[in-house]
Amino acid sequence: MTMADGDRNLLVDRAPFPDGLDERLREQFTFLVEVDRLKAVVRQSPLVSVQRRENDAEHSWHLALMVLLLAEHADEPIDVGHTVRLVLVHDLVEIYAGDTPLYDSAAGVDQEEREAAAADALFALLPDDQALRIRALWDEFEARGTPEARFAKAMDRLQPLLLNWMARGGTWRTPGVTADDVRRRKAVIGDASSPLWEAGRLLIDEGERRGWSRSGEPPSDR
Amino acid sequence: MTMADGDRNLLVDRAPFPDGLDERLREQFTFLVEVDRLKAVVRQSPLVSVQRRENDAEHSWHLALMVLLLAEHADEPIDVGHTVRLVLVHDLVEIYAGDTPLYDSAAGVDQEEREAAAADALFALLPDDQALRIRALWDEFEARGTPEARFAKAMDRLQPLLLNWMARGGTWRTPGVTADDVRRRKAVIGDASSPLWEAGRLLIDEGERRGWSRSGEPPSDR
Repeated sequence: MTMADGDRNLLVDRAPFPDGLDERLREQFTFLVEVDRLKAVVRQSPLVSVQRRENDAEHSWHLALMVLLLAEHADEPIDVGHTVRLVLVHDLVEIYAGDTPLYDSAAGVDQEEREAAAADALFALLPDDQALRIRALWDEFEARGTPEARFAKAMDRLQPLLLNWMARGGTWRTPGVTADDVRRRKAVIGDASSPLWEAGRLLIDEGERRGWSRSGEPPSDR
Repeated sequence: MTMADGDRNLLVDRAPFPDGLDERLREQFTFLVEVDRLKAVVRQSPLVSVQRRENDAEHSWHLALMVLLLAEHADEPIDVGHTVRLVLVHDLVEIYAGDTPLYDSAAGVDQEEREAAAADALFALLPDDQALRIRALWDEFEARGTPEARFAKAMDRLQPLLLNWMARGGTWRTPGVTADDVRRRKAVIGDASSPLWEAGRLLIDEGERRGWSRSGEPPSDR
């Protein structure tokens, strides 16, 4: 159990577990307390039910439920249980690396590096075998090389699209962002499911028509 | 698609989906928007990472992750993917029925009735086949007749125990509640996992020793 960042304080340090706790359980509980931080990582997306922005833990739960209900729309057959695992862990690294907004190109530059360092530090809290397993899930999600990872990513893009629709724009109204930008960043939904991407495009197009997103300037000379 | 309570406004009514959306997807998206309300159902448990109480969506995500990491401690073999499904949906009915605090006996009286009505109303938003599937998961969780349901319930009791430990008491300090009450309400953890109940008891006992919970009056005449 080593930390990439030796200066980092763990949440569990505030009330260390007592003597007598089995060592493997101590590592697992330490990790499970540390990931409480995911509830404090705030995203851009506005909630529908209350006036505040969403956090990563709520978002991850919402994606998991979406997988259960929308898996039937995957273009390739997917293992639902495995896809749920991918979405449950996909944002964990943001505990140390922070959320990188979809429409913030500057923050995206060193995102990969920051998140890999965060994964090293966070997953090291777990017993070695579980650290490897969780790391493998996160790597699979990031690489998008399997149908399950592509579907998980599609959920990650579709869920805020639903929230933005309900907010009559939401982050679609981010300064400098056009409806074309939205379509471009959401197109990965189509890598996993044609019907879901068709539905997503319908919402984006209709949102643009209603002025909930900015229409791009038409090209000047053609 | 009928509602038990005809007067209930759906979240989706604030920004109805446009014409042209496939009917089955419309029902699925309507449900997925409605369950955003789970993020607004506040529980008693204090978070570790920030100074506020937890909501049901965050709690459900935390349980799902606990299932992935702690399933190895189940006394009987469990299907991990199925157990994760149970915890993802176990609190959905609280969207309409509200959270019933563990140590509030009065609110517990009509809890079953309120939650069954809520399940009828909420799950009816889904296509019929999926309404049945989700309802079956919720019924299974409530009945605790399977090893998966017992393990899911154990997570539901162990997670706030960890949060209360980190808060040096938390809801253990609820007026009128004693360490014996805590032990009694948490004992269902032992129906699913001896090592996890042993660990839970260690935290409750040590908490009592430190004065984080109230020791009961010793019986007066024996």
